[in-house]
Amino acid sequence: MNLDYLFNPKSITLIGAAHSEEKLGGVILKNLLKFRGRVYPVNPNYTELMGLKTYSSTKNIPESVDLTIIMRPASEVPEILRGLQGKTMCAIIASSGFAEIGQNKLQDEVEKIGKEIGVRILGPNCMGLYNPYQRLDTFFLPYERLKRPKKGNVAVVSQSGAILSCLLGAVREANTGISKAIGYGNAIDIDESDLYEYLAEDEETQVVISYIESVGNGRKFIEKAKILSEKKPFIILKAGKGLSGQAAAFSHTGRLAGKYEVFHSILKQFGINEAEDFDELIDATKALSYQRPSKGNKVCIITNGGGSGVLAADECMKQGLEVAKLPDDKAGKLRHVFPYFYGINNPIDLTAQVRNEDYITALNELRDEYDGFVIIALPNVMGITEGLAGMIKRAITDINKPVVFHIPANGVAKRLISLLEKMKIPVYPSPERAVKGLKAVLLFGPSPK
Amino acid sequence: MNLDYLFNPKSITLIGAAHSEEKLGGVILKNLLKFRGRVYPVNPNYTELMGLKTYSSTKNIPESVDLTIIMRPASEVPEILRGLQGKTMCAIIASSGFAEIGQNKLQDEVEKIGKEIGVRILGPNCMGLYNPYQRLDTFFLPYERLKRPKKGNVAVVSQSGAILSCLLGAVREANTGISKAIGYGNAIDIDESDLYEYLAEDEETQVVISYIESVGNGRKFIEKAKILSEKKPFIILKAGKGLSGQAAAFSHTGRLAGKYEVFHSILKQFGINEAEDFDELIDATKALSYQRPSKGNKVCIITNGGGSGVLAADECMKQGLEVAKLPDDKAGKLRHVFPYFYGINNPIDLTAQVRNEDYITALNELRDEYDGFVIIALPNVMGITEGLAGMIKRAITDINKPVVFHIPANGVAKRLISLLEKMKIPVYPSPERAVKGLKAVLLFGPSPK
Repeated sequence: MNLDYLFNPKSITLIGAAHSEEKLGGVILKNLLKFRGRVYPVNPNYTELMGLKTYSSTKNIPESVDLTIIMRPASEVPEILRGLQGKTMCAIIASSGFAEIGQNKLQDEVEKIGKEIGVRILGPNCMGLYNPYQRLDTFFLPYERLKRPKKGNVAVVSQSGAILSCLLGAVREANTGISKAIGYGNAIDIDESDLYEYLAEDEETQVVISYIESVGNGRKFIEKAKILSEKKPFIILKAGKGLSGQAAAFSHTGRLAGKYEVFHSILKQFGINEAEDFDELIDATKALSYQRPSKGNKVCIITNGGGSGVLAADECMKQGLEVAKLPDDKAGKLRHVFPYFYGINNPIDLTAQVRNEDYITALNELRDEYDGFVIIALPNVMGITEGLAGMIKRAITDINKPVVFHIPANGVAKRLISLLEKMKIPVYPSPERAVKGLKAVLLFGPSPK
Repeated sequence: MNLDYLFNPKSITLIGAAHSEEKLGGVILKNLLKFRGRVYPVNPNYTELMGLKTYSSTKNIPESVDLTIIMRPASEVPEILRGLQGKTMCAIIASSGFAEIGQNKLQDEVEKIGKEIGVRILGPNCMGLYNPYQRLDTFFLPYERLKRPKKGNVAVVSQSGAILSCLLGAVREANTGISKAIGYGNAIDIDESDLYEYLAEDEETQVVISYIESVGNGRKFIEKAKILSEKKPFIILKAGKGLSGQAAAFSHTGRLAGKYEVFHSILKQFGINEAEDFDELIDATKALSYQRPSKGNKVCIITNGGGSGVLAADECMKQGLEVAKLPDDKAGKLRHVFPYFYGINNPIDLTAQVRNEDYITALNELRDEYDGFVIIALPNVMGITEGLAGMIKRAITDINKPVVFHIPANGVAKRLISLLEKMKIPVYPSPERAVKGLKAVLLFGPSPK
C-alpha cells in the first residue's frame, strides 16, 4: 500500500477517545470533529462522545477503516493492535512509553504484531499528522495551545513532536502554510524515508523540511532524501551533533544518533541541504515557500543604510554568495540618475536621503546582471513609505528574480512588511537573516537537469 | 577636557535649526525640546523656531555653550567651525558629504580647524547621541520613525548611524534600555576608543556594545577596549569581514576596514568579546542587561520537549558550554520524585506531561551543581501556565545563578514571556538563541580579579 490511507483517509477510528479536552484522547477527538470523513470513537464507557456515536470496541465498527489512532497506555497497545487485524489499513500509535524510556521489548513486540497483521504503523511516541487539505488533524494538542498554520505548500517531517509544534508555530509566524505535517516519533515502521518518498510525489507540497535526531536505515534514507532533493527544495535540521546532544537524542527516541561528521559529509556528497539551526531552517523555509527556487549566486544588495549593507555583504561571503561588482556601464548610468552622494557600488547605498523610487530605479537597471536581490529598507527615514510595496509589486513582475527584504522588526513598518509578505516577498529582521533567506532560494532548489 | 560636555551638556547650540520636521534641522530641534538645559537654535531667517528664541549667528548667543550641533551642508562646515572658537566646548557634525563620498580634503580641513580652535568633534557624517538620563537626543530621526528605548544600562557605540538605529530598535524590542547611544561616523576626533574610555567609568552603563567597520588608531583601540572589557561586559560586532564587506565599508565611512582575520585574533588574544552577527549581539545584550555576568561553563538544560533539549545541548557544545552529567545522587533523588517516564539526564526531559512545579523541583535540586540554567517551556501542553512565572520568581532569588528561557514566539504564551522578562529573566524564541544568551552571561563578563 502507499501512504494515502494515512494522509487522505476516508474513515478514522480513535481508540482511547475521551469526553473532554482534559484527556489527550479528548483533545484528539475534538480535533477530528473538523474532519470531513467518517470518525468512529472507541471507549467502552460511553455510547456517545462530543456528539459522535461511540463504540465499545473496534469489533462493532461497521467497516474496515483507513486509519486508526491509538491513544491508550503503552502496555495495552499490543492487544489493541492485534484486535485491528482486518479492521484498518494503518495506525498511528500516539502513546509514549516505549523505547524512549527503555521499554524496547514492548516496542519490538508492537513492531512484530504490525508486520503480522499487515497494518502500517506511524509511531509510537508520536504527534501524528496534520493535513489541512483534508481537515485532518490527529494531534493531541488543543488548538488554543498550538494555533495551526493555514493550508500551504510546506511539508514538515519531524522525529520530535515538540520540534514539530515549534516548527508549525514558526511557519505560521512566517506567514506561510502547511501541506502536510508529520511527527513520526520512534518510527518502528513508517520512517522519514517513507515520508520523503510520499512527499516527493505530493502535489500540494513544494518545500520539505525535516527534523532528524537519528536515522534507522541509512541506505534507504540517503536514497529517498536524494530523490526528494532532486524534485523539490528539501532541508534537513540534524540534532544530536555533539556528545551531549547525542546522549539527549538517545534518551529521547531510543535510537542512536551516530557520528554527526559522517552524516554531514554524506549529505554534502549527495547534495542534500542542511540548516545549521532552528532559525536558519525557518528563514529558508519562508523564502522557499514564497518564491520558486532559482539558480545562480550573484547577488546585488540595495540599501539605505551603509552599515546594514556591509553586514549583508559579509553574510553573503559566509554563505557562498557573490556580491559581484556593478558592470561599469550600469554604474555609469546609475551615477547619472542618482544624487552624487549615493554610493554606486555593490551594495548600492541610497543613504538616509533615499526615496522609494530609487530602489525601483536600481532594480530595473540591474535586473539582468544579478541572480537575486537583497533590499534593505530602514524605515527610520522619511523617504521610505508604504508606497514602496506597490512599486515593488510592479517591478518584480518584470524582473522575475528572487527578491528578499530586510526591514527591522521594531514596529515602525508593520504595514509595509505585511504588504510585502502578501506579495510573497519575504521580509527578515536582520541583514544576515535576509541573506540566508535568499541563499535558500538560490542554492537549495533541485539542480536543473 | 573629558567627554562630559558631550554627554551631559548644560547648554546646546543647534546650527541649521529649521521650522519643521520636513528638514533634518527641524527634526533635531524638535528632539532637543525635551532637553532640560538651555537650547539656542541658529538660523538667520527666523527669530523664533518651535517656540524657542532663534539667533541669526552664534556670535549673538549670550554664552559659550557646552555642545554645538551642526546640520548644514558639508561645504559650509569649515567656516561654521571657525566661528565657534571660544563659543563651544565640543561639536557634533551631523552633516554628511565628507570622506565617505571621497571629500577627504574637506574632511582634513575640518579636522585641522577643530584642533586649532580647541573644540572636540564627534563626526562628521554621524547620528550624534542619545542620553535618556539627560533627555538629550541629537538624532535627526523623528520619534515616530525611531521609537527610542527607555532609560537602561546598555551603551551602544556605533560607527554607522543606520546600525545604531537598528540596534536601538532591537534593544527596545528586547525589553531593555539605554544608558548612552552614540553614532560617531567618520571619527576625525572623538573615536570609538575615547568613547570606550568614557563608558568604562560611566555609572549608568553596565553593558557596552559596539558596531565597528574600521579602526583609526589600532593601538589605542586595543588599549581602551581591553580596559573596558576588564570593567564591564563589552561586545564588538565587526563588519567588513570579507572583501565585499570591506569594499562596502570603505565607501561607507572612507576608512579601510583592514584584514578581519588579524583583527579577530587580536581581539581573542586580549580577551575582548565578539558577536558573530546582529542577532547574536542583541541576544547577548539582552541577557547581560538583565542579569549580572557570572563565571563558569557548566550548564543544565530543563525542558518539556525532548527535541528542543537536543538542539540546546548541541548549541552548548558549539558555544563552549558544558552540558555536564547529573551527579548520581541528584539523579537518584529526581528519579524518586518524578514520574518514571521523565528523562533524568542533562537535558532533563519533563515530557509533555510536565507541570509547572517540576521545573522548580529540578532547579532547587541542582542549584549548586551548575553555573547556569536553560529552561525550555513549550506552552503547547496543558501543564504550562502563567503561574510558572511566579514560581520561578521565588526560586531564582534563592538560586542566584543565571537562568534563561526558551519559549516559542507563536503568541500562545505572550503573557508568560512578558512576566518573565519583567523579572529580568530573558526569553528567547529558539533553543539555540537561549543558549547564546546564557553564554553571554557566563563567558562575556570581566574576569574575576
